[in-house]
Amino acid sequence: VRALRFHGAGDLRLEELDEVSPPAGWVKLRVACCGICGTDIHEYTNGPLIVPTPDNPHSLTHEALPLTLGHELSGTVVELGDRVSGFVSGDRVAVEPTIACGACAACLSGQINRCPQKGAVGLTGWGGGYADYVTLPESMLHPLPDEVSLEVGALVEPLTVGWHAARLANVGPDSTVLIVGAGPIGLGALAASKALGAKTTVVAARRHGARRTMAHNLGADAVLLSRSEDFSASLADLTRGLGVDVALETSGSQDGLDVALRSVRIGGTLVTLGLWGETANIDLNAIMLREISLIGSRGYANEYPAVIEAIATGATPDVVRMITKRVALSAAIEEGFEELANGPTDQVKILVIP
Amino acid sequence: VRALRFHGAGDLRLEELDEVSPPAGWVKLRVACCGICGTDIHEYTNGPLIVPTPDNPHSLTHEALPLTLGHELSGTVVELGDRVSGFVSGDRVAVEPTIACGACAACLSGQINRCPQKGAVGLTGWGGGYADYVTLPESMLHPLPDEVSLEVGALVEPLTVGWHAARLANVGPDSTVLIVGAGPIGLGALAASKALGAKTTVVAARRHGARRTMAHNLGADAVLLSRSEDFSASLADLTRGLGVDVALETSGSQDGLDVALRSVRIGGTLVTLGLWGETANIDLNAIMLREISLIGSRGYANEYPAVIEAIATGATPDVVRMITKRVALSAAIEEGFEELANGPTDQVKILVIP
Repeated sequence: VRALRFHGAGDLRLEELDEVSPPAGWVKLRVACCGICGTDIHEYTNGPLIVPTPDNPHSLTHEALPLTLGHELSGTVVELGDRVSGFVSGDRVAVEPTIACGACAACLSGQINRCPQKGAVGLTGWGGGYADYVTLPESMLHPLPDEVSLEVGALVEPLTVGWHAARLANVGPDSTVLIVGAGPIGLGALAASKALGAKTTVVAARRHGARRTMAHNLGADAVLLSRSEDFSASLADLTRGLGVDVALETSGSQDGLDVALRSVRIGGTLVTLGLWGETANIDLNAIMLREISLIGSRGYANEYPAVIEAIATGATPDVVRMITKRVALSAAIEEGFEELANGPTDQVKILVIP
Repeated sequence: VRALRFHGAGDLRLEELDEVSPPAGWVKLRVACCGICGTDIHEYTNGPLIVPTPDNPHSLTHEALPLTLGHELSGTVVELGDRVSGFVSGDRVAVEPTIACGACAACLSGQINRCPQKGAVGLTGWGGGYADYVTLPESMLHPLPDEVSLEVGALVEPLTVGWHAARLANVGPDSTVLIVGAGPIGLGALAASKALGAKTTVVAARRHGARRTMAHNLGADAVLLSRSEDFSASLADLTRGLGVDVALETSGSQDGLDVALRSVRIGGTLVTLGLWGETANIDLNAIMLREISLIGSRGYANEYPAVIEAIATGATPDVVRMITKRVALSAAIEEGFEELANGPTDQVKILVIP
């Protein structure tokens, strides 16, 4: 069986691996689709970053590179290990890739996203989605209802990242929400905010282009260029001069943080969910004088079912639009990774289809 | 009547002003005590900062320097304007000095501390506590029960700053709390945390000295030197290796922020209530990966009665200990301001007693 394995920066290889059968409690999936995430691109261009190296294997999987990438995946059940009771062959599922210790204070309280040892399928071991097959614990699988395609099933992971952030900020029917960044996570946060009933959603994009159009198509009430001179005036118009209740900062950049901080209302909430490459500069007097809450959001926990339900019922906008390209596993490097690695792109989500 | 008026950096003058009678709804107090606050010292050494200047008077008081300083005050009612119904001559009160517009979204929701035009008696007009008399709206006065002396009444203001911060962080009976900074606001935050029932309180002090001893005397379970090599190990011992639920950062310094951020547990809360003189550097990945909430705390609203009650019932530690020096109004500059302005001090709270 084929798998796209990461050996180091710029070194992804499509390799042939032995077939394995699932141990007790585990399930073998035929991978249907796996989205390429910004994290994968960072590994490809600058890695290994999250991917463990042989001198320091992951504490839970004990694996290190080379390993298979791909953590935004859907698939079909093809083989069951012993004592698997919740699935049968042919079931269509989305994979929740979090690997957690199960024993720390965070895990014991159900918040596996906060586990200090947290890893993920497709980054720290146990195979990954850029492969013909993957074998995973039953607990990672979430059934997809008929209304949710396997393609959209591969979007559940990035959508849930945004969902978790919006929930941490208590986004609800009265909320005005600014999403900073119009990449897949920003658009996922937009979709989540819409599904949670946000009254007004505004996206701050860095430039014109297809992602900005996509934000409109996913139902943003406004899409503003964050560097435009009109930005603050336009946002004031949209928020009765108060600023937004919630800013979801997905860019992990100083520009994005500055835009978010100056846009959030007195007493409002700023969620940071991007990964930063540097230390941020922040005016804590602005945080203090306006009593803003700055909250970190990491991954998700216990939220896949709600997101799948929101997609199935149509509570989210039509997220299939986020899929802008589909590539075969054999073409994933050239037509997927290389396009995303070479700077600004009009792609939103590229799916690899083994 | 005498008043200590601020004319600019290094220029405080004890002046003779005309007596005034209170207008309708206002009350004249004979000032009993007024604490010297760090804010006063900043004005004295580097001001005007908050104090408005003649080219830009305060939007609500329309006053500018020279004006009377002093915002931590208690006093006795000596004269009532028309339509004052809640007080009689001789009543002992603590003053809540917030001046707010009463018409903005924050004020209309009762959160006058968040008013964008917020000012304060003793900083932006309406007289101040370093004076024989002050005349103020009835709504600023809170009666002191017999159990609370006028001296302690002058501590209610700084104690309430810490109370508000601790309440924003939901400090309660199960909480472990780190207070960064052992100045009056830090010690007030300690007293508030104790009164709110915190299970464990730890103070991070920058150096040895009287303030550190004071933190012990006010009931801190531990007082650690923030720059000590043992700091992290000692904190781990006190928190079962998890870190604290809540860190209250009162120093407004990069050192203090760093100590607070590395001390707070996964999913914990860091409250920033110091005023910063510069932009902070902050590792937002640490905020994100540990899902920390960083919350700004500004002043207080609707909390004086609870603080006075906590003092009266003995729920707070014996805060009168915080008063380390008493000076007459005529000696306030030389024996009060100058001592605090000249760098590290063993004083905690100096009261001016007109």
